[in-house]
Amino acid sequence: MNARMSPAPSSPPSSPATLLVLDAEPLPRLGRLTGRVRIEHADESSLARKLPHADALLVWDFTSHAVRRAWPGEGPRPRWVHTASAGVDHLMCPELAASDTVVTNARGVFDQPIAEYVAALVLAMAKDLPRTWDLQREHAWHHRESQRVAGTRACVVGSGPIGRAVARTLKALGITTALVGRTARTGVHGPEELDRLVARADWVVCAAPLTAETHGMFDARRFGTMQPSARFVNVGRGQLVVEEALAEALSKHWIAGAALDVFADEPLDPDSPLWRLPGLIVSPHMSGDTIGWRDELGAQFVELYECWEAGRPLRNVVDKKRGYVPGH
Amino acid sequence: MNARMSPAPSSPPSSPATLLVLDAEPLPRLGRLTGRVRIEHADESSLARKLPHADALLVWDFTSHAVRRAWPGEGPRPRWVHTASAGVDHLMCPELAASDTVVTNARGVFDQPIAEYVAALVLAMAKDLPRTWDLQREHAWHHRESQRVAGTRACVVGSGPIGRAVARTLKALGITTALVGRTARTGVHGPEELDRLVARADWVVCAAPLTAETHGMFDARRFGTMQPSARFVNVGRGQLVVEEALAEALSKHWIAGAALDVFADEPLDPDSPLWRLPGLIVSPHMSGDTIGWRDELGAQFVELYECWEAGRPLRNVVDKKRGYVPGH
Repeated sequence: MNARMSPAPSSPPSSPATLLVLDAEPLPRLGRLTGRVRIEHADESSLARKLPHADALLVWDFTSHAVRRAWPGEGPRPRWVHTASAGVDHLMCPELAASDTVVTNARGVFDQPIAEYVAALVLAMAKDLPRTWDLQREHAWHHRESQRVAGTRACVVGSGPIGRAVARTLKALGITTALVGRTARTGVHGPEELDRLVARADWVVCAAPLTAETHGMFDARRFGTMQPSARFVNVGRGQLVVEEALAEALSKHWIAGAALDVFADEPLDPDSPLWRLPGLIVSPHMSGDTIGWRDELGAQFVELYECWEAGRPLRNVVDKKRGYVPGH
Repeated sequence: MNARMSPAPSSPPSSPATLLVLDAEPLPRLGRLTGRVRIEHADESSLARKLPHADALLVWDFTSHAVRRAWPGEGPRPRWVHTASAGVDHLMCPELAASDTVVTNARGVFDQPIAEYVAALVLAMAKDLPRTWDLQREHAWHHRESQRVAGTRACVVGSGPIGRAVARTLKALGITTALVGRTARTGVHGPEELDRLVARADWVVCAAPLTAETHGMFDARRFGTMQPSARFVNVGRGQLVVEEALAEALSKHWIAGAALDVFADEPLDPDSPLWRLPGLIVSPHMSGDTIGWRDELGAQFVELYECWEAGRPLRNVVDKKRGYVPGH
């Protein structure tokens, strides 16, 4: 991990400190902190009222937008917010961005699981597994030729630890993989090369953070530049993709297939046309969530908490202007 | 490739030689041989009658057992038989094994495609993709935790080029992989270690040739030694597995899942209970068949033919007693 350390940690004023947890089931297992820290629980309706009394906030319910709504209120604010997610788009608001509050994220927990999930989707599409399932359901023996992935090209958009893990895993399968980030550096192409790389890719994988710059970056124009044989995978955030444009790209065969694990609105509405769009694989935002992931998230928070309590530098500090943890 | 060369190639007696092709659609594209070789075509019913007049036999229909039936007849026999498949179980008979006829196979064409296919199945099972498809069909958003493959253990049975390619690919995904072959050597465990390795594996992959020794090797006793969390994949031959025992192992939860690409009887009968066995993925013997595979098989045969015609040593010569091409 090359996660940025906080230059000036803000330690708690009193002991024991008050930790407010925006709850989700199952609750976090906070192990060593139990009994040592004053833990308060909040739900979406009580969060605004409880915020002024908290030293730190753990956003355990990372699907909630409640922090963004509650933060701009009256009174003191926690000096540290940790979210049990890689993305911070659901909690950032101008007031939080402008404040002294330190924001940390769950960088590191999801890298390898998401990389494997992307490999699973790429291989499933190459080997025509969705059709295999349909045929099995019909008891139909129908031999098909499938694709070899070794020697194909991928473009992975997003050069954080998740994107880099995805690129490493695809390379291990013999796929020639280019990584595109916000700034060009060794092993990472800059955004000025995105169109060229997307246009020649067999696999376009989106693992970027959701920021003002990346919102809607996969739109009709960009899908239009892809090869008709290309497949698109999104494991970032739903709003990175203009879903109507993807639907058009698939139904008009601008691209050959896609897999979405994230959506603009989650959970995806049962009436959404995306569920039955030919060539689209829909999964319920689970790419990073391997068995034991909640315990890993809890343990990661406990480690961060102990650093914060001791006044030591924090890992995984988000650049609140950029919307992600800068790093290599 | 370390495929065994034939020590004493048998070149054709006359020029042009007569090449008999046991046909399957689409016919082989024999490129450079066209017009230079006398090519005769046979189907299952005419094969026995045409065999005595052929110098060489190309078994293009590798699903047929016609060679095994036709070979023991009267008259001269081709001095070279090539099968467009990795396995030779469908054509070997005692008379062919005892004869001077050289048998070659398609060793090399299927290695990487099958390795990718196994990786696709392993990742699909780890990431619960079959259930994802079922839920998509129902428009149901149902988050699940999936498995991480990095750090799990695989046992690959069969140490030929296919098994070795499978092992390399699984290792590239971070899976600790043991390879088991007929004889222990560097990087390959001997059969005396099979039970121990199968018992601790999360993934048991069968990529062995079908021989008298391997027939039915995955039986009730062997499935009974596996972990309840283990998954089994067969990309070898159907008869390596006692299908009733696998059905029992799945339905009694001795193992957690399986994927079969090959079956004792192919195509699988629409009424076979295997189609709807919970936890079993059924695919129609397609693991090695990537786009362009038939052209690769044709080109491989043309190269072998030119060696044979020139009296040069042949690659991919099958040890007819063992039933596969010996090598590293």
